[in-house]
Amino acid sequence: MTLTARASTRLVLTHARMATMAGGGAPYGLVEDGAVAIEDGRIVWAGPSDALDPALAGNARTVDCRGRLLTPGLIDCHTHLVHGGDRAAEFEMRLTGVPYEEIARRGGGIVSTVKATREAAEETLFRTGLRRLDALIAEGVTTVEIKSGYGLDTASELKMLRVARRLGHARPVTVSTSFLGAHALPPEYGDARADYVALVADEMIPAVAREGLADAVDGFCEGIAFSVDEMDRVFAAARAHGLPVKLHAEQLSDLGGAALAARHGAMSADHLEYLDAAGVAAMAEAGTAAVLLPGAFYYLRETRLPPVAELREAGVPIAVATDLNPGTSPVHSLLAAMNMACVLFRLTPEEALKGVTGNAARALRLADRGAIARGMHADLCLWDVETPAALAYPLGFNPLAAVLKDGAVVRGELAP
Amino acid sequence: MTLTARASTRLVLTHARMATMAGGGAPYGLVEDGAVAIEDGRIVWAGPSDALDPALAGNARTVDCRGRLLTPGLIDCHTHLVHGGDRAAEFEMRLTGVPYEEIARRGGGIVSTVKATREAAEETLFRTGLRRLDALIAEGVTTVEIKSGYGLDTASELKMLRVARRLGHARPVTVSTSFLGAHALPPEYGDARADYVALVADEMIPAVAREGLADAVDGFCEGIAFSVDEMDRVFAAARAHGLPVKLHAEQLSDLGGAALAARHGAMSADHLEYLDAAGVAAMAEAGTAAVLLPGAFYYLRETRLPPVAELREAGVPIAVATDLNPGTSPVHSLLAAMNMACVLFRLTPEEALKGVTGNAARALRLADRGAIARGMHADLCLWDVETPAALAYPLGFNPLAAVLKDGAVVRGELAP
Ligand SMILES: [Zn+2]
Ligand SMILES: [Zn+2]
Repeated sequence: MTLTARASTRLVLTHARMATMAGGGAPYGLVEDGAVAIEDGRIVWAGPSDALDPALAGNARTVDCRGRLLTPGLIDCHTHLVHGGDRAAEFEMRLTGVPYEEIARRGGGIVSTVKATREAAEETLFRTGLRRLDALIAEGVTTVEIKSGYGLDTASELKMLRVARRLGHARPVTVSTSFLGAHALPPEYGDARADYVALVADEMIPAVAREGLADAVDGFCEGIAFSVDEMDRVFAAARAHGLPVKLHAEQLSDLGGAALAARHGAMSADHLEYLDAAGVAAMAEAGTAAVLLPGAFYYLRETRLPPVAELREAGVPIAVATDLNPGTSPVHSLLAAMNMACVLFRLTPEEALKGVTGNAARALRLADRGAIARGMHADLCLWDVETPAALAYPLGFNPLAAVLKDGAVVRGELAP
Repeated sequence: MTLTARASTRLVLTHARMATMAGGGAPYGLVEDGAVAIEDGRIVWAGPSDALDPALAGNARTVDCRGRLLTPGLIDCHTHLVHGGDRAAEFEMRLTGVPYEEIARRGGGIVSTVKATREAAEETLFRTGLRRLDALIAEGVTTVEIKSGYGLDTASELKMLRVARRLGHARPVTVSTSFLGAHALPPEYGDARADYVALVADEMIPAVAREGLADAVDGFCEGIAFSVDEMDRVFAAARAHGLPVKLHAEQLSDLGGAALAARHGAMSADHLEYLDAAGVAAMAEAGTAAVLLPGAFYYLRETRLPPVAELREAGVPIAVATDLNPGTSPVHSLLAAMNMACVLFRLTPEEALKGVTGNAARALRLADRGAIARGMHADLCLWDVETPAALAYPLGFNPLAAVLKDGAVVRGELAP
């Protein structure tokens, strides 16, 4: 769909309030009256409308944005949107006071999602994943990361990743996949932790690499999941197969996961509520991005805040994502995640927008998107708002007017 | 629009998972395989599909809901969706650390919305209000309450209420209006509190009543707004003009506003984080509904929870609403308010759904809606979910498949 819809002729957008998110200048990299020229799916020029080269505008289709806000396409850099079943029943049980043991007995928790994912046909995973993906796309997401991690056996993990890849072909969105075999110890392994870690490192990662199904290797470093030593082994295997790594770290306690990730040159460490100063320093040193996930913080009624001020001060790039998952963050809205990042984590609206554009691209090591600048993919959102702050300020309001993916209009209309 | 679209022929929906929200039986008043017969905009029969009288189905248009969830149309019983401007800039100033005094100096706070509302042409208020209303309607809202309260002079208050009434004619939604002249002391009154209260009681309420523009009179009883004695005077005027009352009470402190409201037989007392036992008892005694507004709790990062257990125990009907307003709750999603009521206030998903159907109708004293039962308006939502808990569980996901307003399909399609 992306390919067939790709525009090959030149398109010029003028008179946009343009939040370029390119660094250095005004907040948001704002150009009050901006223009952008697009050719073959890429941005060939961006700047003030009155500085647009007439030769560029010459034989191009030109659209007047009439002062509406133009931003880079949004990037959700942390999701688990492919999974079987949902956990609405568990959500209800918890709120009606069913004891934790009883919920577990009835198959609650991550185990229930693993069971549902293993049992689901690939077609079912695709269809339900598409519904969730469409919710993200409806708010301007043009690049999305999708993790495996509910299969926890080789065949089921590969199945999840194949579905994630298919989703990227079914919609005008770039899908970046992460293999998350080290998400939880599967129930059938009992106490045989080392055996499962060996399976992940010695069988799953090679298989995933061979089939080209993953763009990165992820893990969950936590008391209820995997230790630093176990993740070290998994990351070593990933790197041996040429795959970059990332980590769910310091969400519920401080195990030093972020520092481990940084030692492996990780793309990102995610969650980070319990991150300490050493972890911040290690991330800054390694250029590892911090991915904040306020949806999980909200659903878990967490009170410990991630060290935003320290991350800022250390110059760690801060991204924001939905963490869309059935257990702790059934958040299907990246705008809602931006809002929560502001309200709950006290990010500024500019940081929230940077967190779902430039810094999300950074977290995914995609250097070719996340800003309106020459050479970037022409992934763009046009919004019916007056200021970029108006994106993070409301909750449940979607002012999206149009989306371009690789230069092609894939949603809404450019000229009203 | 409602009138012209109203179906006059009989319509029968079968094989719905039907959350009737009618009391007495299973949770949610659930009928696993339910049917409903509609004639002249009203429900003439509801029950199990296999108990449907063949005579009813006879010459009716029949639609198979194929197991999808059918609920009453949603009711948002507390909004301020008509107003000038927004407060995105103020939201941003607070997060970028601009001191409170500086924000006030730049015209922040409620005063800025009053200024923008007074200056706005009626047409502008209508157009911007419609945009917000459409966001609510897109999630199945078929009845909405809209308050005045940003005019604070007679002409501007009447203007707001006229716009609210017009919105109800422009969309297939019932609008219930509340006159909220006692929202804040307008800046031009300085210390002349009594003069403004007299204006509200002796000029505005008579004018509003004369023109039939309000279905109720509301107020804000708080240290930063009006005292119990001042509200007493406003309520007396309201009742003298035959208008029922409601109150923003106990949001930031416990002034005994809910008890005052109860003494005046109020329809509802709203917010209630600081409500004490005496207030709960007074509300229960008077049949005053509690309207919980988790959006404002969330945006204000309030930590004091409303006394949900005490309200439950006392049998006070609990409603849930968006409080859609530009300052403390720019929440444009009633599903999000339901979710927050569960996550933040620990309501059960059933209580959340009751809070936006039967108990919201109760809060608005609209006895003819809020349940799927004989005699009720045929305001119905069909959802692509398996269980009613799936409405409150996710955030930013809208599974609405179709909406009927007074028996007419006004959104989506019934057959798939
Ligand atoms: Zn995650
Ligand atoms: Zn209010």
